[in-house]
Amino acid sequence: MRIDIITILPELLRSPFEASILKRAQDKGLVEVHLHNLRDFSKGKYNQIDDYQYGGGAGMVMMIEPIDKCISNLQSQRDYDEIIYLTPDGITLNQNIANELSLKGNIMMLCGHYKGVDQRVRDMFVTREISIGDYVLSGGELAAAVLADSIIRLLPGVLNDETSALSDSFQDNLLAPEVYTRPAEYKGLKVPDILLSGDFPKIEKWRQNNALERTQQRRPDLLD
Amino acid sequence: MRIDIITILPELLRSPFEASILKRAQDKGLVEVHLHNLRDFSKGKYNQIDDYQYGGGAGMVMMIEPIDKCISNLQSQRDYDEIIYLTPDGITLNQNIANELSLKGNIMMLCGHYKGVDQRVRDMFVTREISIGDYVLSGGELAAAVLADSIIRLLPGVLNDETSALSDSFQDNLLAPEVYTRPAEYKGLKVPDILLSGDFPKIEKWRQNNALERTQQRRPDLLD
Repeated sequence: MRIDIITILPELLRSPFEASILKRAQDKGLVEVHLHNLRDFSKGKYNQIDDYQYGGGAGMVMMIEPIDKCISNLQSQRDYDEIIYLTPDGITLNQNIANELSLKGNIMMLCGHYKGVDQRVRDMFVTREISIGDYVLSGGELAAAVLADSIIRLLPGVLNDETSALSDSFQDNLLAPEVYTRPAEYKGLKVPDILLSGDFPKIEKWRQNNALERTQQRRPDLLD
Repeated sequence: MRIDIITILPELLRSPFEASILKRAQDKGLVEVHLHNLRDFSKGKYNQIDDYQYGGGAGMVMMIEPIDKCISNLQSQRDYDEIIYLTPDGITLNQNIANELSLKGNIMMLCGHYKGVDQRVRDMFVTREISIGDYVLSGGELAAAVLADSIIRLLPGVLNDETSALSDSFQDNLLAPEVYTRPAEYKGLKVPDILLSGDFPKIEKWRQNNALERTQQRRPDLLD
């Protein structure tokens, strides 16, 4: 898989892709992540990439021309399965979308800023608009990092133990059950006896019940 | 405001807090963000912070003792309004929660990894469990960065133009209207005439209708 991220703040995105699982996935050759500075495609002394919005009002709008140039440059080198615009008014990301995107080959991500991009960018280029949740961020960079992380960890070979991802929250519409590790007692708080019993069929049953109970309490909407 | 983030991967979080709005907010003294490496509170040659889960199964669990030591150390220095655990089975973050948290003084954030933290950490210390969305990430670090960003941009003085945040998506349960900037025509695609008219009451009306239409089409749930 190849992910190209178009941003005015490539420096913001460096460390998330240079640490932990995202770094290991790249080191193993399972994914390539390329950051593109939108200002490299702007013109004039000030490398302008935004301008006032038509009709007046607070907040700048990202211009179409530099984005067109950057996207066209990438498209001239390879085909892209998706050009994703990260925006709070997009479709809300969920595990199903992450699963689906993890099967693609080449993905472009465009990070919005200020009041977002000129609507014509969305009309001309964007194949999907994704929001990571119902809140506003100072830019699309963290949203792109979150989306990339949710996808990359699903690629075969990225997680050491593949069964680990399958038992995550959401993969079966249930939240994960409670987990415990040593010590068995800490400042008076004990691990449930059942988990120390060694009776694995009973433990499995307890976990299923616990996952169901937690989901009923916290997220009954997932059970509908 | 002060935000303390407890993590096993402080290096992952460096660049998001050293760029853009989050950096400016710190430079202006509007927020302090401190990263704490959980391994500084672990013991033994290998600075162990995780262990196998009781009852068996794939995935490691973060141990209570280093987390207890780190949290206790911070609590001995100041009072905290919230100790937030970032976890996919928490309450889903939305703009109302971000607004509410932006009024707090001291916030601690705990980033989960692997299968999460020992349940007793949640029982003993955590005041809120927050999820940034219905998907699983390789760790809580990006979730903490997203939560911090959503809060910090709301602090008075962080955004240059305060009306800008108030007209964002979600602040009024409507998605933002379409935006356009120069040029008025690009490769045959034109800006809607109304936005070029200079008739500001009509423009305002158009924007309200556009926001309502977009919300009806994309997110009818927000209108309930």
